[in-house]
Amino acid sequence: MRREILKILRESNGKFVSGESIAKKFNISRTAVWKHVQGLRKIGYTIDSVVKSGYALYSPPDLLLPDEISNGLETKIIGREIIYFDSTNSTNEQAKRIINERKNQIEDGILLVTESQTEGKGRLDRKFYSPYAKGILFSIIIRPDVPLQDAPKFTLAIAAAISQAMEDFGLKPGIKWPNDIMYKGKKLVGILTEMSAEIDRVHCIIIGCGINFSIEKFPPEIEEIATSIEIMRRDLGVEKFSRVQFLQRILIRFDDIYREILSHGFEKTLNMWKKYSITLGKSIKVIPAGEIENSFEGRAIDLDSSGALIVEKLDGSKVHVLAGDVSIR
Amino acid sequence: MRREILKILRESNGKFVSGESIAKKFNISRTAVWKHVQGLRKIGYTIDSVVKSGYALYSPPDLLLPDEISNGLETKIIGREIIYFDSTNSTNEQAKRIINERKNQIEDGILLVTESQTEGKGRLDRKFYSPYAKGILFSIIIRPDVPLQDAPKFTLAIAAAISQAMEDFGLKPGIKWPNDIMYKGKKLVGILTEMSAEIDRVHCIIIGCGINFSIEKFPPEIEEIATSIEIMRRDLGVEKFSRVQFLQRILIRFDDIYREILSHGFEKTLNMWKKYSITLGKSIKVIPAGEIENSFEGRAIDLDSSGALIVEKLDGSKVHVLAGDVSIR
Repeated sequence: MRREILKILRESNGKFVSGESIAKKFNISRTAVWKHVQGLRKIGYTIDSVVKSGYALYSPPDLLLPDEISNGLETKIIGREIIYFDSTNSTNEQAKRIINERKNQIEDGILLVTESQTEGKGRLDRKFYSPYAKGILFSIIIRPDVPLQDAPKFTLAIAAAISQAMEDFGLKPGIKWPNDIMYKGKKLVGILTEMSAEIDRVHCIIIGCGINFSIEKFPPEIEEIATSIEIMRRDLGVEKFSRVQFLQRILIRFDDIYREILSHGFEKTLNMWKKYSITLGKSIKVIPAGEIENSFEGRAIDLDSSGALIVEKLDGSKVHVLAGDVSIR
Repeated sequence: MRREILKILRESNGKFVSGESIAKKFNISRTAVWKHVQGLRKIGYTIDSVVKSGYALYSPPDLLLPDEISNGLETKIIGREIIYFDSTNSTNEQAKRIINERKNQIEDGILLVTESQTEGKGRLDRKFYSPYAKGILFSIIIRPDVPLQDAPKFTLAIAAAISQAMEDFGLKPGIKWPNDIMYKGKKLVGILTEMSAEIDRVHCIIIGCGINFSIEKFPPEIEEIATSIEIMRRDLGVEKFSRVQFLQRILIRFDDIYREILSHGFEKTLNMWKKYSITLGKSIKVIPAGEIENSFEGRAIDLDSSGALIVEKLDGSKVHVLAGDVSIR
């Protein structure tokens, strides 16, 4: 009901709608209407009320509220359930809690989203900067029935989906292997994928994303390595769009990709990833997973079917790198 | 203190020890001694007390009590902390709960053990039969700093450790790939390994084991496929040993193997696994992970360095099977 009332207010484009007409439409009392309006205010909507005129919705708040995200969202699997936190430790941690609570009853494609994280982190426990309502911080829980070795490819898939969404708005994405989205050598998006699994099959994959959206100034310790969608947008002279609009595009793109993977495998997705790659063809330095002493140089020549980066070393030998850090030289 | 008193009672071999001498030894009151004895009774020990004679321990109960398991257990990592349940849903589920609670503070090698499980299960959600105090049901939580693709090899490692422990008592183990321990074509031990991981590294691996120990009669629906240590022991005319003794041997063997893996990798362990394998060299039928429609026949010729089974198909081509079910023909 609350969602229906919100829809009416939204459709009236800021003009007043009388409480009586709403009450009549849903066959409820005017007090009930007033209670629902109070509920909407409580979750972040600014609604004006004037005696005899009724209610009017100010432009929706720039928050990632579930009703905003799901408004018009045509996805089949991703984001059909949305869990919102004004602030939380991290959406990945909340996802783990929910997986533990719901066990095998958990649905595919749940979205968890928040305005700010107190313990947000990236790979290898690196901290992730997230000022209130300036990033897009979310996790998606998926339950594909795939063997363990397929799991890393979902990380490439979300990077491809975010890149497509950027392109939809006129931006120019570039993915550094495996899943950092970059602009002018600085990071726009960080992705941390976690999972629970048995030896032969994945149980749940949690894809956590942090997107620097409207941040214009970063703290000194990261200003050399971090940038934002807003900075890129201005540079490229692209029209403004909201956090909700951008997140919706990502969900739609990832929903398509995910369903493609479930029915036909990863080939198309890996090719799409390659299209956005800024690593392939470059001279790079590779630090294999956590082993700084085994780092080496070479040229990134391709992605193999497992999602590993194929690197040609200086001596001509080829290595498939499954996990690690890459810097472009 | 409770543990110290238990030690004294144990060392007196069933003879009475006066409350006064215990009180003097630890400089506590006789009432305090009595309270500790009550505590021991509460967790399952039968202790006789006679006025003026003192306390005497009956033979320790045949339960997997932590004090029994850790008595004389010389391991460095595995089982240094023991968590006991008289009954629980499953030790793997309890392990997940503890991992979630302790997060990064969790130690390496925690043992969880129980007398009976209400929701014990094996791979692919198959139920695991566990009458009270007749099996050895346990999970070990390990936190090796290894890449994801190494995780399945720990499953082979625990199968090798249990096989070694069996051999230590004079039994003849045989491992069916990947980790079923068999006797006369029937299953003795089931192993379910689960994990939480990031894409580049393992966070925690939970190795859950269910050993049919003193079960002599199985329910009709599994009597064709299940057997027990007791049945094998009698067949081979091997001397009796207790559940605690057997579990201790497994922990000692796995502690050795685990430390070998952490310092030198998996080579030695995989070779040990091969020694106990009843799959290698045999004609087999393979059902790749959950895909009954893709099953095929061939000969198991070797284990590769990733722990996958190398199968030579009838047409001479070779396949590396990473996950699945195998039946020997």
